[in-house]
Amino acid sequence: MNDLEKLTEYFREFPGIGPRQAKRFVYFLLRKNDNYIKELSNLIPKIKQNTAVCSRCQKYFTKRHNENLCDICSSKNRDPSKLMIVARDTDLETIEKSGSFNGFYFVLGGLLPHLEEDAQKFIRIKELKELLLLTKEKAKEIILALNANPDGDNTANYLKKFLSKEFSNVKISVLGRGLSTGSELEYADKETIFNALENRK
Amino acid sequence: MNDLEKLTEYFREFPGIGPRQAKRFVYFLLRKNDNYIKELSNLIPKIKQNTAVCSRCQKYFTKRHNENLCDICSSKNRDPSKLMIVARDTDLETIEKSGSFNGFYFVLGGLLPHLEEDAQKFIRIKELKELLLLTKEKAKEIILALNANPDGDNTANYLKKFLSKEFSNVKISVLGRGLSTGSELEYADKETIFNALENRK
Amino acid sequence: MNDLEKLTEYFREFPGIGPRQAKRFVYFLLRKNDNYIKELSNLIPKIKQNTAVCSRCQKYFTKRHNENLCDICSSKNRDPSKLMIVARDTDLETIEKSGSFNGFYFVLGGLLPHLEEDAQKFIRIKELKELLLLTKEKAKEIILALNANPDGDNTANYLKKFLSKEFSNVKISVLGRGLSTGSELEYADKETIFNALENRK
Amino acid sequence: MNDLEKLTEYFREFPGIGPRQAKRFVYFLLRKNDNYIKELSNLIPKIKQNTAVCSRCQKYFTKRHNENLCDICSSKNRDPSKLMIVARDTDLETIEKSGSFNGFYFVLGGLLPHLEEDAQKFIRIKELKELLLLTKEKAKEIILALNANPDGDNTANYLKKFLSKEFSNVKISVLGRGLSTGSELEYADKETIFNALENRK
Repeated sequence: MNDLEKLTEYFREFPGIGPRQAKRFVYFLLRKNDNYIKELSNLIPKIKQNTAVCSRCQKYFTKRHNENLCDICSSKNRDPSKLMIVARDTDLETIEKSGSFNGFYFVLGGLLPHLEEDAQKFIRIKELKELLLLTKEKAKEIILALNANPDGDNTANYLKKFLSKEFSNVKISVLGRGLSTGSELEYADKETIFNALENRK
Repeated sequence: MNDLEKLTEYFREFPGIGPRQAKRFVYFLLRKNDNYIKELSNLIPKIKQNTAVCSRCQKYFTKRHNENLCDICSSKNRDPSKLMIVARDTDLETIEKSGSFNGFYFVLGGLLPHLEEDAQKFIRIKELKELLLLTKEKAKEIILALNANPDGDNTANYLKKFLSKEFSNVKISVLGRGLSTGSELEYADKETIFNALENRK
Repeated sequence: MNDLEKLTEYFREFPGIGPRQAKRFVYFLLRKNDNYIKELSNLIPKIKQNTAVCSRCQKYFTKRHNENLCDICSSKNRDPSKLMIVARDTDLETIEKSGSFNGFYFVLGGLLPHLEEDAQKFIRIKELKELLLLTKEKAKEIILALNANPDGDNTANYLKKFLSKEFSNVKISVLGRGLSTGSELEYADKETIFNALENRK
Repeated sequence: MNDLEKLTEYFREFPGIGPRQAKRFVYFLLRKNDNYIKELSNLIPKIKQNTAVCSRCQKYFTKRHNENLCDICSSKNRDPSKLMIVARDTDLETIEKSGSFNGFYFVLGGLLPHLEEDAQKFIRIKELKELLLLTKEKAKEIILALNANPDGDNTANYLKKFLSKEFSNVKISVLGRGLSTGSELEYADKETIFNALENRK
C-alpha cells in the first residue's frame, strides 16, 4: 500500500466518509498549496495537545495556559442554580448557540443504550456524582436535555432514578415534548400528539 | 384528445400526481377486471351523494339516513367542556387515531396565510362563531391544534384575538411546543430548544 | 366499512399509492365540483369499453369505429422493414416521443424474469409468432428494445434464440449500450465502460 | 479563533464538507489515539513530497526513487497503439478498475467548459501535444473518454478539431453512447434513445 492509499484509508475512518470521498480528499490535498498542507498537518496534533477536558463539565476546550476549567465553567455570569446534563459536546454547542440557557452544563459523553446496565461504560456517572457533590448547595434544578429517542429516554430514566436517590433535594426536569418548529399535525406521531396535548398552554 | 388522454388529464389533477403516474393509473385501470372498474366508478359519485358536512364540526361524514351531525358530534360519551379547533379533516383524523382527546372538534377548512386579512375567505369563521354561541355555556376550554409553522401560528394568533374578544370567559390554549418524538438535540432549531426549555417539567 | 373507506381502499390499489395519499384522493374528490366527478366516473368504464388491444402490435388504443388496428399499425407512412419489440406500452410511447424510430412495433406485455422458463406466462410469444408469420416477407430487421437490466437481458436472450430458430433470415439487433446522456465516467460501472469502449466510434 | 475552530475551517475546505461535518471531524480526531493522529499528520505532507505528476500521462503517482513515469506509462505490457484521453485521475482509475483497456492514458486535468475559448486554462493541451509528438509513430487510435455531458461534449469537439488538424493520420474515436447498465427504456431521454438506436447491433 503506497502513501496515497494509506492516507485514503485514514480518511475512510472519518465519520461519514466512504472510499470515494476519502480518495477525493487525497486528490484535494495534492492540489492544495504547501501552506495549507503545512498548517493542516500542524493543527492536527496541536489540537490534541492544546485541548483539555474541563474538569467540571467534561467538555473539550482549548487551553490558553494551564487552566482546567472551560470558559463556561469559569464564568461568573452564569446562573449556578441550574445544571443542564447533555450527552455530547455538540448538544452543548447547539444549546449555547440558541441563547436559551444561562446555567452550567455537564457532558455525559454519550447515552446509555436501552437494555444496557453498566452505565459507567457509556456515560460519565462518576464525574457527574463528583460534580454534584461539589455543587450540591448551589444547584436547585438539574435539567436533563437528551435526545427524544429510546436511548435518550433510557438515559433520562436512569439519571432520574440515580439523582433522586443521591440528591433528593434537587429538582429534576426534562425538556418539554410537543410539536417542534415546522411540524404538521397531520403527520405527527401518537406520542407527540399526546405530549402536545398534555403540555398545552 | 381521446378518452385515454382525457382520463390521464383528470388524474393529473389528483393531489401529488404528475403526468407519468397519471398515465400509469390509466394503464392500471385497463388491466383491472370489470368488477373493480364498476365498483370504482360507482363509488366516486356515491361518496359525494352520501357524504355530508357535519353541521356542528364541519367535517365530512357518511350519512346513513338524514342525520346532519357526524358520529363524534352526536356522541354522548365525549367531554363537552373541551373544543379542539383543527385546520382540516385529516388533522382531526390523526388526533382521533392518537386516542389522546375526548372532547369535540371544529374543522376550520384551512389556515389563514400570513398577511392575509380576509379570514372568511380561508377559514370557517362564521360557522365557528355560530357553534360557540350554541355551546357557550358548556365549552370551558378551546384548544387550538394547528401546524407549528407560520400559517398555523398566524391562524392561532387571529383566533386568539377573535375568541378572547367574543368569548372572553372561555380558556384558550395551544398545543405544547418542544422536542417531538425522535428529535435529536444536536439538530434542533433555536425556537424548538427555547420552547423545550420553557416547557420543561 | 363506509363508502369513504371503501373508495380509499380502491385507490390504495393504484400503482404507487399508500394509505395516506389514497385518503387524500378521497378528500380531493369531495371538494371537486359535480362536473368533474361526473366526467371522471363516466370516463373510467368508458376507456375499458372504447379501448382495444391492437391485433398486430398488441398495444392499447382508443377505438373510433370497429377497427382492430392502432394508428401506427394502420399507417402507410411507416417503414415495414423494421420491427421493434418492446416490453410495455409505456416503452413504445417513450420511443415514439423521441421521434427516432419510424418502423412498426410489437408489445410483449412484460419481460421474462430471470430463471423463468414458461415464456408464455410472461410475454406474448404466440402473438409475436403470428405477427412474424404475416410480416415475414417484409420485416428485414427485428430490434429488441428492452431494459438494460437482468430481466431485459434475459428476455433478449430468449427472443434471440427463438427468433433465430424460427425466422433465420431476419436480422436481429439490440439497442446499443454505452454511456447514457449525463453519465459521468468516474461513476460508470464496469459493464457500461466495457460496452462504451467496445462501441466506440 | 482558537485551534479547534481553525481546524474546523480547514476541514470545511475539503470537497463536500459542510460546517457540521467539519466540526464532527475535529471531535473525531480529539477522540482518536495518539498513533492515528501522528500517522495522519505525517502522511499529509508526505504525500505531497512523494507524489509526482507523471511526465507522460500527467497522472499523480507515488515516487519510489527518482522515476518520472508512473507504473502504467513505464509498463512494457501495454498496447502502445491506443491512447485514451480522460479528464481526471479518478476517471483513469475507474477505467483501470474495469479492466477493459490495456493502452496508455493522458489526463487532461479537467474539461473545457462550454463557451470557454482559452483551452490552455482548463486542460493540458500543451502537454498533450508534446506527448503526441513523441508517440506519433506508435499511437494509431486516440480514444476520447469524457463525460456524456455538455462540458464533456465540448471538450471532445475541441480535441477532435485540434487532433485532426495536427495529427491527421491518427484515428480518433469517442466512447459509445446508448443505454447504460440498469437503464429502463421508459425513463430514457430522447438523446439516449436516439444513440441506442443508432448504435444497435
